[in-house]
Amino acid sequence: MLTVVDLEQARSIPLERFGGSCANRKRVVSLDGALGKVLARDIVSEEGVPPFDRSTMDGFAVRAADTFGCSEALPAILTLVGEVEMGVAPDAACSSGTCMRILTGGQVPQGADAVVMLEQCEEYGDGTVGIMRAVAPGDNMVFKNDDVKPGEPVLRAGVGIAPHHIGSLASMGITECEVLDDVSVAVISTGDEIVDEFRKPVGAQMRDVNAPMLAAAVRACGARPVRYPIVPDEYDALLSAVRRALEECDMVLVSGGSSAGQRDNTARVLSELGELLYHGVAIKPGKPTMCAAVREKPAFGLPGHPVAAYFMFLEVVRPLLARMCGAGDAGGRVRRATLREGIPSNHGRAEFVAVRFEGEPDCASRLKGGQGAEPHSEGASGKASRGAFDEDGREAFASPVRSKSGLISSLAAADGYIVIGRNTEGASAGQRVDVRLFS
Amino acid sequence: MLTVVDLEQARSIPLERFGGSCANRKRVVSLDGALGKVLARDIVSEEGVPPFDRSTMDGFAVRAADTFGCSEALPAILTLVGEVEMGVAPDAACSSGTCMRILTGGQVPQGADAVVMLEQCEEYGDGTVGIMRAVAPGDNMVFKNDDVKPGEPVLRAGVGIAPHHIGSLASMGITECEVLDDVSVAVISTGDEIVDEFRKPVGAQMRDVNAPMLAAAVRACGARPVRYPIVPDEYDALLSAVRRALEECDMVLVSGGSSAGQRDNTARVLSELGELLYHGVAIKPGKPTMCAAVREKPAFGLPGHPVAAYFMFLEVVRPLLARMCGAGDAGGRVRRATLREGIPSNHGRAEFVAVRFEGEPDCASRLKGGQGAEPHSEGASGKASRGAFDEDGREAFASPVRSKSGLISSLAAADGYIVIGRNTEGASAGQRVDVRLFS
Repeated sequence: MLTVVDLEQARSIPLERFGGSCANRKRVVSLDGALGKVLARDIVSEEGVPPFDRSTMDGFAVRAADTFGCSEALPAILTLVGEVEMGVAPDAACSSGTCMRILTGGQVPQGADAVVMLEQCEEYGDGTVGIMRAVAPGDNMVFKNDDVKPGEPVLRAGVGIAPHHIGSLASMGITECEVLDDVSVAVISTGDEIVDEFRKPVGAQMRDVNAPMLAAAVRACGARPVRYPIVPDEYDALLSAVRRALEECDMVLVSGGSSAGQRDNTARVLSELGELLYHGVAIKPGKPTMCAAVREKPAFGLPGHPVAAYFMFLEVVRPLLARMCGAGDAGGRVRRATLREGIPSNHGRAEFVAVRFEGEPDCASRLKGGQGAEPHSEGASGKASRGAFDEDGREAFASPVRSKSGLISSLAAADGYIVIGRNTEGASAGQRVDVRLFS
Repeated sequence: MLTVVDLEQARSIPLERFGGSCANRKRVVSLDGALGKVLARDIVSEEGVPPFDRSTMDGFAVRAADTFGCSEALPAILTLVGEVEMGVAPDAACSSGTCMRILTGGQVPQGADAVVMLEQCEEYGDGTVGIMRAVAPGDNMVFKNDDVKPGEPVLRAGVGIAPHHIGSLASMGITECEVLDDVSVAVISTGDEIVDEFRKPVGAQMRDVNAPMLAAAVRACGARPVRYPIVPDEYDALLSAVRRALEECDMVLVSGGSSAGQRDNTARVLSELGELLYHGVAIKPGKPTMCAAVREKPAFGLPGHPVAAYFMFLEVVRPLLARMCGAGDAGGRVRRATLREGIPSNHGRAEFVAVRFEGEPDCASRLKGGQGAEPHSEGASGKASRGAFDEDGREAFASPVRSKSGLISSLAAADGYIVIGRNTEGASAGQRVDVRLFS
């Protein structure tokens, strides 16, 4: 029953079971709200873009053939038959031997097939224009439908909508589009002693940390959190809350249950409703983490301890959630750094250790130019005085964040965390590590 | 008057002039809406966390001194005086020789100063408990205020609020906080021929691409776009629109004006209202870009051509906007790749070239495991068959995206772009380049 897995399995098992985008629901959003959403179906333009032959220069619209062979020494002399007004179809056409004045973006008049740049023309003031440079058909203009032909697919389903896609849709007059609905994640806290953050705890009650924190973490992945009322430590209450959440959401996170009895409730409920894929992860903190498949939806039991719940969310839930949101594997940012101090560890299981970059919580400015590399005396072996360089070429050092209580506020001093493997005796000063950043 | 700068100057001049966070306005948000905002003032807790001595294990609360010297062979025998109910202050205290049953998260009763884990105790069923392992004071519990002392600063102004900060605030019962207001950016399109995307163009009108696209790009930076009505090509109309926008917003973007006359209007208006810092950038496309300081607010004139406007936004406006939003320099993601084909360029000015990764728009899966490295025949010199590796160790190839019109929909086939320097003759097949990703 108690299937303990290691951290890598805890991440890969749900990815394999539920991998791929789950969001079958679609919804229509206005262009204004489409940024970052995933397009649910191909976009086919009903119109051509541009809808008319369009000048890309200020100058004169001409028949290219009229300019062949001309030069500064021997300009082609054309009769000016009018001016194209911006935004209005030309009121004249160009027959052989004539031209019209035109600005960038203006409609090239019928009969004309090229534009000569202003700098290569001379107006003589008598109703004629001298053309000093020959142009080929199509020069300095864009033909109708060159950008998009009517009926042609412009954007494919599955595209993550970026600003230039929004520009493209706007150019076709498409002001709303069908996108994958946000993945919804139920966030449920359990515990007789827990009250929500809007209530003043009495007696030995504690405020719920996990639900507001995990809801924000879900939102940071691009998914939509749905918070449910706090569930007391009763099997039936938890069963009905989780059952309802699974009907309403794409994923369920149950947290809390720090005591053995509470944890058992979560495991019993998930087993009752579906299949427990694992129960327990060999890492500290984070052991009481479990994952279940309930009617092909993922349900996680996370530790009650907020720091443990946060680490396990980032390491185990986030990769799956990112993939369900269509965002690739989005494992979070990593920065390579050199440890200033050794971190002993001999627990026989892997360990999360919060670290900060040398100096201050946000080290970016200090580390620039290698200023973070002043040798400090902590690096017992002296090896730490030559640091790792991250992808931006900045030298980075990291130190563990010590905390007696290990409670959530202790993370305020940390920039991220490292994972110390289960079969090591900790990490030593001077060792290069991958720091997983909180943001 | 026409001060042309290169791309690097176009980026650095506004950064130096306006660098640093500009958002002096503050607003109060609920905890639920605080994710990603920048804290405007230090958070000082009024309460201590935890508010009482709290057990971190299931077991028995004891006086540590009563356990000194005990062992499995010689347990300390303590009298069970009750059980701590979760969420409720204990109804008894521990005097010498007594213990109370307690769960993780329960309040340690008065008199007790440690908790012995359940596994190290044995209940004899006669009202006594045998303790098999000695504990020190403080073992398996957290003392009142260990995490946060009343009056102690917990989070500092300037912090970008991450999920664990929200958890920390919730633990203190802080359900709203003061954050820097979003940086607001006015987005103004100009042009007699332009109509907004909700209207059907008539005659030779075109739909506005830039305003919806730039508004989305502003939003992607974490700032708040404010769209203004389209301004016709009249000096007075543009002057009053820009003046109003500068009063209402932190930054102004004017785009459009593809024709020389329109561009002049923007430059004249910005000169009239403030100081033009540069006028023209030596890059193609993107030359008609300008930057002005108007009462210490930045105002940019961007090209009317949507592709040019987008590139210049990403390269010139985004770094400043990211810094104004307190997000560091956030220059966008870059992936190193090897060019499949040469790109000729001899314009005497730098050039943006849209590229896609080999195979398909999102190459991540194809490139995994080096599958993108099958030798193709395009690499004229054969050098392209050994590719660059990006930061994830994936081998990446890029090809230019050809487009006759260069209009905005052509970017749908691109993953990003490269910048070809002004003093080169283009880029050659097999050359390693930094691809700046669109998203």
